[in-house]
Amino acid sequence: MSDPITDLIGLLARLPGVGERTAARLAYHMLGADPAYATALGQSLSELHTRVRHCELCGNYTTEARCKLCVDPRRDPSLLCVVARPTDVAALERGHAFHGRYFVLHRLLSPLDGVGPESLPIERLDTLLQQQPVEEVILATPLSVEGEATALFLGEELRARNIRCSRIASGLPHGGELEYSDQITLSRAFEGRRAL
Amino acid sequence: MSDPITDLIGLLARLPGVGERTAARLAYHMLGADPAYATALGQSLSELHTRVRHCELCGNYTTEARCKLCVDPRRDPSLLCVVARPTDVAALERGHAFHGRYFVLHRLLSPLDGVGPESLPIERLDTLLQQQPVEEVILATPLSVEGEATALFLGEELRARNIRCSRIASGLPHGGELEYSDQITLSRAFEGRRAL
Repeated sequence: MSDPITDLIGLLARLPGVGERTAARLAYHMLGADPAYATALGQSLSELHTRVRHCELCGNYTTEARCKLCVDPRRDPSLLCVVARPTDVAALERGHAFHGRYFVLHRLLSPLDGVGPESLPIERLDTLLQQQPVEEVILATPLSVEGEATALFLGEELRARNIRCSRIASGLPHGGELEYSDQITLSRAFEGRRAL
Repeated sequence: MSDPITDLIGLLARLPGVGERTAARLAYHMLGADPAYATALGQSLSELHTRVRHCELCGNYTTEARCKLCVDPRRDPSLLCVVARPTDVAALERGHAFHGRYFVLHRLLSPLDGVGPESLPIERLDTLLQQQPVEEVILATPLSVEGEATALFLGEELRARNIRCSRIASGLPHGGELEYSDQITLSRAFEGRRAL
């Protein structure tokens, strides 16, 4: 019969950024802590994928058919922010940078990995555009090769539907030093310069 | 109703060395990963405290009444190594430094926290000493104030029972530089010097 501690360490070591030693430390910590804690965490994980699903409209994580942001009347339905992942929504919400609605792609174009345009949820995006009076789509996919390719593709699709779209700005981050910035960031910062 | 993602992040953030941001990263990782993984980890955690208990003899973690090391006939029963925690057993077993049996205290003397001699499992230690032909007890509690106090106390108890006991060596670690060692370590290294 398998050893529960070894099994647990093996499972924990599969988490990102957690090696064998950290996994062992966590497992022994939980053995030494209140049993109710391990049980609560265990139940939370066991139920995670049954309780959490994708919002039928925006694709973000939710426990209902539609997520809180999609049903919140205070969110501006004329602005739609397209992001790659639910973590991007969480990051933007933390920053209070945006007050419109979201659309989560869950994947980006990546021809090298065989992820082509047919993998993008264009149908779901069309459904949302039919249901919501969207005036501008802000493409907020990452500034990576995949993110740029996806933004380019979606931009064309949206223009074909006569929907105005924009791309988030690229440049030096807040507090960024020219000395420590890469060439691409520097040239983007110059290209995107604004009149004062 | 509570939000399962927020709940999970809150529970994960209680792990040692895991902050809110790491907890969120882990939670979203598990949401994006194979649902079978979160379920397996969840079940492993839920069952942890019911499947794992303390060995009735040495106190180490085990799934049976007695642990594998206590019932292993290849382990030398004449040598008993007293350690503070099950993680210490795991560390020593990884190093293959010791081939005798273990005794896990699970706590150390700590008068400031109100942990006095009555909290130490002396009765269980006596039971083990009656069942095993122990010739030497190696006190391998940490070299901290609590570990030293516990070793001192146990040393007296064992001498009163006419059992030979020893303390693990204190000095510079492997590869240790004098320049970067603290004063206590340096003076211990000198006190414990051995003739060549």
